[in-house]
Amino acid sequence: MNEQTINETKIEGRNAVLEAFRAGKTVDKLFVLDGCQDGPVRTIVREAKKGDTILNFVTKERLDQLSETGKHQGVIAITAAYNYVEVDDILEAAKAKGEDPFIVLLDGIEDPHNLGAIIRTANLAGAHGVIIPKHRAVGLTATVAKTSAGALNYTPVAKVTNLVQTMKELKDKGLWFACADMDGEIMYNLNLKGPIGLVIGSEGDGVSRLVKENCDFVASIPMKGQIDSLNASVAMGILAYEIVRQRG
Amino acid sequence: MNEQTINETKIEGRNAVLEAFRAGKTVDKLFVLDGCQDGPVRTIVREAKKGDTILNFVTKERLDQLSETGKHQGVIAITAAYNYVEVDDILEAAKAKGEDPFIVLLDGIEDPHNLGAIIRTANLAGAHGVIIPKHRAVGLTATVAKTSAGALNYTPVAKVTNLVQTMKELKDKGLWFACADMDGEIMYNLNLKGPIGLVIGSEGDGVSRLVKENCDFVASIPMKGQIDSLNASVAMGILAYEIVRQRG
Repeated sequence: MNEQTINETKIEGRNAVLEAFRAGKTVDKLFVLDGCQDGPVRTIVREAKKGDTILNFVTKERLDQLSETGKHQGVIAITAAYNYVEVDDILEAAKAKGEDPFIVLLDGIEDPHNLGAIIRTANLAGAHGVIIPKHRAVGLTATVAKTSAGALNYTPVAKVTNLVQTMKELKDKGLWFACADMDGEIMYNLNLKGPIGLVIGSEGDGVSRLVKENCDFVASIPMKGQIDSLNASVAMGILAYEIVRQRG
Repeated sequence: MNEQTINETKIEGRNAVLEAFRAGKTVDKLFVLDGCQDGPVRTIVREAKKGDTILNFVTKERLDQLSETGKHQGVIAITAAYNYVEVDDILEAAKAKGEDPFIVLLDGIEDPHNLGAIIRTANLAGAHGVIIPKHRAVGLTATVAKTSAGALNYTPVAKVTNLVQTMKELKDKGLWFACADMDGEIMYNLNLKGPIGLVIGSEGDGVSRLVKENCDFVASIPMKGQIDSLNASVAMGILAYEIVRQRG
């Protein structure tokens, strides 16, 4: 089990899980006993489908393994440490400040320390929000909240199903997209002013092909050393502050 | 016990520890049973005093607690994952490349992940080396080596007793020093070209007073958000790349 899961809040048992949904808590993942057709469990699954919860139908052995209380009654919910906003809320935040939108999009960051550091930097660089994908990425866990050093209280984070689709919608609203990759144009030579989305790829694989194809610019950080790549949160900081400098 | 200690190599027992010293291994710390006056132990202490090893005289309980083998015989050595260089080696590396020296000085970084990420960034930003203090700071542990993503094989690290003294010596050799602090001049307005030492403060307390007083510039990163400070390795990355841009 990875750190992310350890640091999230687990809610176990039918009443507790149903209560979490009804209280409006953000449930990231729901583990349900495969084949279970009880009324209460079916109600929980229905609630899960209303929102963005990822549903996992699993064996009793898997539930027993995940359970901390030993009393899961066939359902375990993993809730986020913080709530997500909608992408439009981020645009509204920019508008309210009378600024061109500056949004950070993360294409699959998996390390909660990197996500936390990126939200921290996004706050200080004056970005209006961060967009993360729903799948194959870490969400807003307790570790992320801690590593963000309080930034998660100020910098909104939206979670989307399809990053490319979200980029297309934001392009229609006037945003330009720059992603970070090594084969791009040196960042100092690009015009990064105006409404911008800065796209950072995952720790292992960088920016995915489709996302990259939908970017207007590919920005590269000059690399003078012998090794391959910067840490994802450091690379994000360097690029975000090149945007700050150009907007300056 | 912190992560640093867990990831360092422990050598226990009189023969093994003496052998480590005689093989030229870098022993960061030596724990010795307080009051122990045996010949072999006194030989080990003498070896330790020849180098940079930090000597700790401790109780038997503390040794038992540190011991992994249960057979420490009154001595436990903590060895670094990598070897250190001398400050002059870093200057030589710059000279060999025909470049103005660009050195990163760390005033008390305690988190091995931050140190690793900083060495990684130093490599890619073309810095010629990193200088860390001997006391109250993390050394080159296995975690640092891993987080540096291989940079520790290329970017030399020197460990010094007194950072201020080292800065004074480097000033005599023509270096200018810029430290990062919030009350400084915005980095874009400073001239960061020429032979430079970039000083980064500790995670909690920033740059210490004496070190700051010995800097020629105090550089600040523009802060537009609500929170206090950037992660130390992100701040280092942003400043290092401002130096790269200006040297461009």
